[in-house]
Amino acid sequence: MALATLGVCYYPEHWPRELWPEQAATMRSGGIELVRIAEFAWSRIEPNPGQFDWEWLDAAVDALAAENLRIIMCTPTACPPLWLVERFPEILPVDSDDNIRRFGSRRHYRFASQVYLDESIRISQAVIDRYANHPSITGWQLDNEYGCHETTLSYSEDDGRAFQRWLEKRHKHIDALNTAWGTVFWSQEYRSFAEIGRPNLTVTEVNPSHSLDYWRFASDQVRDYNAAQRQLLKISQGSDRWVTHNFMGNFIDFDHFSVGADLDVATWDSYPLGFLDQGWFKEEEKLRYRRIGHPDWAAFHHDLYRAVGRGRFAVMEQQPGPVNWAESNAQPLDNAPAFWGMEAIAHGAEFVSYFRYQQLPRAQEQMHAALRLPTGEAAPAWRPVSRLAQELQSLTPNTTSQAPVALLFDYPSCWASMIQPHAPCMDQLESTFHYYSAARALGLDVDIVHSESELDAYELLIIPGTIIVNAAFVARAKNAGVSCLIGARSGSRDEHCGLPEILAPGVLQELIPLRVLAVDSMRRGAVRSFSYEGKSYEASRWHESVDSTLEPRMRCDDNAGLWYSADNHHYINAHVPTAFLTEVIREILSARDLKPKALPQSLRIRTRGSLTFAFNFSPESQSFVLDGANCIIGTRNLAHGDYAVWQSDCE
Amino acid sequence: MALATLGVCYYPEHWPRELWPEQAATMRSGGIELVRIAEFAWSRIEPNPGQFDWEWLDAAVDALAAENLRIIMCTPTACPPLWLVERFPEILPVDSDDNIRRFGSRRHYRFASQVYLDESIRISQAVIDRYANHPSITGWQLDNEYGCHETTLSYSEDDGRAFQRWLEKRHKHIDALNTAWGTVFWSQEYRSFAEIGRPNLTVTEVNPSHSLDYWRFASDQVRDYNAAQRQLLKISQGSDRWVTHNFMGNFIDFDHFSVGADLDVATWDSYPLGFLDQGWFKEEEKLRYRRIGHPDWAAFHHDLYRAVGRGRFAVMEQQPGPVNWAESNAQPLDNAPAFWGMEAIAHGAEFVSYFRYQQLPRAQEQMHAALRLPTGEAAPAWRPVSRLAQELQSLTPNTTSQAPVALLFDYPSCWASMIQPHAPCMDQLESTFHYYSAARALGLDVDIVHSESELDAYELLIIPGTIIVNAAFVARAKNAGVSCLIGARSGSRDEHCGLPEILAPGVLQELIPLRVLAVDSMRRGAVRSFSYEGKSYEASRWHESVDSTLEPRMRCDDNAGLWYSADNHHYINAHVPTAFLTEVIREILSARDLKPKALPQSLRIRTRGSLTFAFNFSPESQSFVLDGANCIIGTRNLAHGDYAVWQSDCE
Amino acid sequence: MALATLGVCYYPEHWPRELWPEQAATMRSGGIELVRIAEFAWSRIEPNPGQFDWEWLDAAVDALAAENLRIIMCTPTACPPLWLVERFPEILPVDSDDNIRRFGSRRHYRFASQVYLDESIRISQAVIDRYANHPSITGWQLDNEYGCHETTLSYSEDDGRAFQRWLEKRHKHIDALNTAWGTVFWSQEYRSFAEIGRPNLTVTEVNPSHSLDYWRFASDQVRDYNAAQRQLLKISQGSDRWVTHNFMGNFIDFDHFSVGADLDVATWDSYPLGFLDQGWFKEEEKLRYRRIGHPDWAAFHHDLYRAVGRGRFAVMEQQPGPVNWAESNAQPLDNAPAFWGMEAIAHGAEFVSYFRYQQLPRAQEQMHAALRLPTGEAAPAWRPVSRLAQELQSLTPNTTSQAPVALLFDYPSCWASMIQPHAPCMDQLESTFHYYSAARALGLDVDIVHSESELDAYELLIIPGTIIVNAAFVARAKNAGVSCLIGARSGSRDEHCGLPEILAPGVLQELIPLRVLAVDSMRRGAVRSFSYEGKSYEASRWHESVDSTLEPRMRCDDNAGLWYSADNHHYINAHVPTAFLTEVIREILSARDLKPKALPQSLRIRTRGSLTFAFNFSPESQSFVLDGANCIIGTRNLAHGDYAVWQSDCE
Repeated sequence: MALATLGVCYYPEHWPRELWPEQAATMRSGGIELVRIAEFAWSRIEPNPGQFDWEWLDAAVDALAAENLRIIMCTPTACPPLWLVERFPEILPVDSDDNIRRFGSRRHYRFASQVYLDESIRISQAVIDRYANHPSITGWQLDNEYGCHETTLSYSEDDGRAFQRWLEKRHKHIDALNTAWGTVFWSQEYRSFAEIGRPNLTVTEVNPSHSLDYWRFASDQVRDYNAAQRQLLKISQGSDRWVTHNFMGNFIDFDHFSVGADLDVATWDSYPLGFLDQGWFKEEEKLRYRRIGHPDWAAFHHDLYRAVGRGRFAVMEQQPGPVNWAESNAQPLDNAPAFWGMEAIAHGAEFVSYFRYQQLPRAQEQMHAALRLPTGEAAPAWRPVSRLAQELQSLTPNTTSQAPVALLFDYPSCWASMIQPHAPCMDQLESTFHYYSAARALGLDVDIVHSESELDAYELLIIPGTIIVNAAFVARAKNAGVSCLIGARSGSRDEHCGLPEILAPGVLQELIPLRVLAVDSMRRGAVRSFSYEGKSYEASRWHESVDSTLEPRMRCDDNAGLWYSADNHHYINAHVPTAFLTEVIREILSARDLKPKALPQSLRIRTRGSLTFAFNFSPESQSFVLDGANCIIGTRNLAHGDYAVWQSDCE
Repeated sequence: MALATLGVCYYPEHWPRELWPEQAATMRSGGIELVRIAEFAWSRIEPNPGQFDWEWLDAAVDALAAENLRIIMCTPTACPPLWLVERFPEILPVDSDDNIRRFGSRRHYRFASQVYLDESIRISQAVIDRYANHPSITGWQLDNEYGCHETTLSYSEDDGRAFQRWLEKRHKHIDALNTAWGTVFWSQEYRSFAEIGRPNLTVTEVNPSHSLDYWRFASDQVRDYNAAQRQLLKISQGSDRWVTHNFMGNFIDFDHFSVGADLDVATWDSYPLGFLDQGWFKEEEKLRYRRIGHPDWAAFHHDLYRAVGRGRFAVMEQQPGPVNWAESNAQPLDNAPAFWGMEAIAHGAEFVSYFRYQQLPRAQEQMHAALRLPTGEAAPAWRPVSRLAQELQSLTPNTTSQAPVALLFDYPSCWASMIQPHAPCMDQLESTFHYYSAARALGLDVDIVHSESELDAYELLIIPGTIIVNAAFVARAKNAGVSCLIGARSGSRDEHCGLPEILAPGVLQELIPLRVLAVDSMRRGAVRSFSYEGKSYEASRWHESVDSTLEPRMRCDDNAGLWYSADNHHYINAHVPTAFLTEVIREILSARDLKPKALPQSLRIRTRGSLTFAFNFSPESQSFVLDGANCIIGTRNLAHGDYAVWQSDCE
Repeated sequence: MALATLGVCYYPEHWPRELWPEQAATMRSGGIELVRIAEFAWSRIEPNPGQFDWEWLDAAVDALAAENLRIIMCTPTACPPLWLVERFPEILPVDSDDNIRRFGSRRHYRFASQVYLDESIRISQAVIDRYANHPSITGWQLDNEYGCHETTLSYSEDDGRAFQRWLEKRHKHIDALNTAWGTVFWSQEYRSFAEIGRPNLTVTEVNPSHSLDYWRFASDQVRDYNAAQRQLLKISQGSDRWVTHNFMGNFIDFDHFSVGADLDVATWDSYPLGFLDQGWFKEEEKLRYRRIGHPDWAAFHHDLYRAVGRGRFAVMEQQPGPVNWAESNAQPLDNAPAFWGMEAIAHGAEFVSYFRYQQLPRAQEQMHAALRLPTGEAAPAWRPVSRLAQELQSLTPNTTSQAPVALLFDYPSCWASMIQPHAPCMDQLESTFHYYSAARALGLDVDIVHSESELDAYELLIIPGTIIVNAAFVARAKNAGVSCLIGARSGSRDEHCGLPEILAPGVLQELIPLRVLAVDSMRRGAVRSFSYEGKSYEASRWHESVDSTLEPRMRCDDNAGLWYSADNHHYINAHVPTAFLTEVIREILSARDLKPKALPQSLRIRTRGSLTFAFNFSPESQSFVLDGANCIIGTRNLAHGDYAVWQSDCE
């Protein structure tokens, strides 16, 4: 048994059935073992209301089974067929301009629609009844990419009524809501839950508590929708197969931890180049990493979804070549598809499934590359992926190693940062990513944790400007004896998106005695310079005026405080460069007798049991040597896009 | 009696009533004498239709009165409560996409709504009846920030009908409208007023006369709405108290002079940093003045609102720290809140009221700083403001000095420049500001004047590219013997937004004999260079081909004319740098035996009777000395954000 | 008889009738021979339903005829009067947000509206009945600027029903549509044509085949609408007069070749500066050519519309001074109006008509310059245009010379590039323009051809990245013996906007044996460098991985192929600089024993029979000499904005 397996996303309905056996045989010949199918096949499974056509899908399953391929079967609810929309037009989502979002692409449903929930249960039950005990079915995927295309939030009148019921459940009494939201401001008081509207199309900014509750409500609809489908599999014959959902990159529109709680494995769809192009990265990074991706982007998501899956995760869709949906769609380096696959596995992925087997020469994604060309021939990605499959045969299963660093991530904090950004570029996901990157540049493995996580096993806990932090979490951190590195803006809002009564950083004052009196929100180009160990840096974007009995450990050149420390805990009261954060982390860990060392630029390593993986994202060659270990894949000299695997002697 | 007093904006409804006495005592201890209340309190005053709750407001008034604080009471009409919106949803404004703008923030009403006018009269009368003769009430504010959040213009069907009635009143006969608008163009002729639509959602640009009349109509609705509330106070018991409205910065959506004609005092809300961030300033200026504001921005508005208030003005809301509503929200220099207060007083403000007493840790403006922290402790602004209160004790009332320079400002011209900009960055407010800045760099006091103003007292009248100028104004200017400096684009449209029959500058040809044959609208980067007294400059954005019997006094390097003079009058036919305008003004005044001298960079002075105030906006220290005067506050060496006051011997 | 005549656009309805005779006499005095009238006069012709007023138009026609001016009469359908909109509000177009686009400007009708088609036939027939046999009428213009202001596409429910009927006609059976569109993707299958919606407001990207069919449908509505009006003139008494429509610059929203097929002459509206400001040009080009236009922009359109008019074209509206509708509206060089007129004639224009005779000082276009000022005096353009009229007297009619180069242009390919751009700045019109520019820099005359054109007469056929190419065209190219230069992205989609079964370049593989395996879509700043004959260049935006038995003729520095050749045919698999394309074209023509030579920078020439025209767009003076020819207008040394005409001895 290999350390992990490779798979593909496959659409038998796209191809003449006479091609299926050959396609299955080709997959097998390339080392593919897993095949995901049917997530967009509702119109073929139930072409007319109540009239099911299983014959073709049975045949497709059999064709795959004949090659000993294991199947991930999906519920097809991401794309209700047109006849269902015609019957129940109220399932269509409504955008923030109150326009109905029409049939004609995908994800044309509202999570809060009871009728759509019923219909999705009906079709899912039918698929489960048909295939749950088929021996080739190894797992289930529910729906596909919840929330994609900004479909988490919808603004129909029916959504509004569901929101009112949700608010009543949360706040119990309208007075409690008025207090929590501070509706006395601007005479916004409500006399009953039935009076509360959706937060769109208001004259100016809506109450931020109103917005945050709408995000929470919408997130809960996704959680409940997923839980209802998941429940079907709990009570079905196939209840021994694992259940997953495929989440996305750079996506925070619902609380993934709460959806993940209902899944066996979290999977995600990894498109390193599309998101490099679209993301917050600097222009120079976008050019430097154009064909391989940012060194920490996929890794961050692997670690995030490992947390969402409570230790179990995989990549359900792996970019194999240029995608079609970014503004510019770079062609990956030749070796990149294998590189990304091995990287996922280094971070603990149970499998890596490429999207997709064969490029369809029609419809929206016709310019999205695949493992096979539209003609059926091998696409550029085929050869490196096949080689990866062989390499995986030489790697044996391995227990995961304990990461020294925990990094807090919190979805409601992301929503809070969008609701009131207050400063340019202070995106919550980006802030978290900077701290992640800083730690990774030291070769440290990182676990992402959430507000309910246990913290005992870690040396360092990073709270990277997390806006909403709860008291129980802080208490656990305190008891765990972990060192805490707290970034600016942490704990700056309470659960209702209000300021803490005791000022920011709120409950984090339990860890370090300081208060934020004012924030300097700095426009692009405005900086406060500072020096550390002979190097110059610039704080930008956000700087807090701190009131504390502590003397700052470090100051900016204008004398304003920058780094406060008390016992094991540290507070950085500004947005600072990642390179400086790396120095801070090294310093904190030094105090705990760890001696992490900076890796060569753009090189990253990851440990999985006795294996250490090295990945060179740098356009320049880099070399990496691990004492007491043998290089079993690749070499110590890594060219652009090369990886190497080292087996340590000791295990 | 001091030269001016300090105040605060205060929201007793935000705080437990047991805090009120302590809050009032603290205000008093800091030198605060004035307190504005109740402008957003409708939902507390009338929590249900017709059911009034005066008890709390009586108690709040008493708590303030107990500390001898004088109260500015408001009509609470800026925020109708939800029950009123439920009863009369037709009061909601409609945006230019025809979407109804919903309840959930503030200013959710249309000025043209008769039902809302009735309701606002009803609630205002109730408040007036209750408090008009209370001895602690010193003045009244009507509503709050008319037009904020683009609420001057609304596009409902009811607005459309009101517009038709307004048009009939203005044009009398449909033929007159057809002629004035030139509707024969593109077959746009109307057969009756009832046929005329709102000017939104047309296939392409609507007739500019149609747009300008819609702006005039909307402006008149604001004027009438304000006049109706003002009338209540004219006939009430409190008719001896002054009445004001708080206008805004960088805001031109209605004719403030026509609203001001119904007020005793004009007040405005001064947020120098928020508007620096949002405004038209150069990036280098935004960085240079990031924590103190542009040297001329607040001053320009002080002088503008002194004109709107026919000599009487004050600051109703003064920024005390970072605001929450700009893209970046800089933290002011420590001394800035006092600096801005003293600057307002230098320009004649009767009081300066800080917004607001205490920061509310909930709702939309929770990140807006105040004089006191959410905890009740002193915020960073508290100390400098208290010191300012003490300084004011040492300054005695003073007659205002006569300014040598008058600067024309005209709201319909602003609308015309938005309706047909014709060239990038030729914003009417910005153009006016450049001329203002040019004069202020010479230490000149400036009065802003409007089209009905008397002009006899001035040496120089600047018409800074004012698009619409009327003949009576030009006749007054001619008779006044004032020198006129006329900027490009002045007089380029008639009252209907059409070209003058005699070409631009229209009636200004009475002052200087020239005509504009064509305009070169220049894209960013395109320039015409010229030199003046050994310095090089560049004209940009706008250059006019002039037909005249006059030989140009100055030419661009390509030989095109740039400056035309006839008798005392001058025409600059291009957009030119402010620094060159300063030279032009110095030259013109030299001819009148005035010898203004350029101030040190970013330093500004203002004279009020025997007092001269100096303000250093420069990051570098500057020094200022006034012969025959004593420095009574501050010193002659002014650091960044310092001010000084000089008392001249002669008075 | 002169080589071409000059005209004006004239609006008698804008002026008091007593001015008409004088205006006509002035036109005649300036050498004007043609006058276009009445295209926006419906509200004057039929001020109330069914009530016609011919008297004024008869008088205007007579006033012009009295000066022997020839008249281009228009159907007035571009601007239906308000009473018609009130009767039939369903004629209003609907934008892609589903908002109705209101009356208040122009072009407020939907092409697919049957009721509007009926009404436009009714009014057109009335105008034709009145004037078709008037001796001064020399030609007809139908409507005005079809599709301007994005009116080609409309999204009303009625448009949707017309689309369904159109789809049924095109695809016959719903299964054929499902296959062509690939609707199995994302469960988008249709069971009947009646189920298919408009392609707007979908959750995410709509099926590209759906979009392309909507463009085709909309284009066909324009064609049919035009054909219906054209048919009236075929059967009227005036059937001997030519019929045209005035197309626009940079405009590709419908298939102009299919509309042109129903016209005798194609005309277009040439505004070189407005489109320079708005277009895709580099910032440095926008500044360099600010007052004269890009050297190839007007020329490209002249050659395009000569193709649309099957050899016959003219300029119906020629920019005479600053326009009003761009963001910046530069003032042309003094001589530019004549320069542009002569340039049009060099490219074969039968006449050049200036827009317009006199500037109207009211309504939307009041800042649009004319030949005469609003006062009636000569505007700056009057003198150079009058001089041009005199010069034309000295040029005799001339047969057109055969151009050596054919350049393919295809409207559906333009739509395809907007539907799925895939890479930044890969606009189809711009790509075509680069190839055009490359050939023109060698002094080569270019014919634009379409997919049905004959190709036998050419040396070189350029397929400049044309996305959709049909097999018959390729066969004609093959048989013609022409050399083909094929740009990247050519033939990359089939007629349904799907990938070719045999991969890109699809049917062009008949000309050169290669296939595109992947596209590297490159973000701004990403480049692949290469060298050619000692010069360095950079490919950007788009680079294709090519699979071929051919060895690349040239490679990028990273070894990727760049130029493939087989026999006479060439494929450039990247977006490359125009200067390199010029080298490629020179090289290809050298192989055919043509020796084109690069012209001085920004100088352009055009041959028309024995005449050769030279135009200097360069801010620097350039000189041009033609052996065996006499310079009969201008000189060999051409300043900025100068032109010269050479008569060769041999003819």
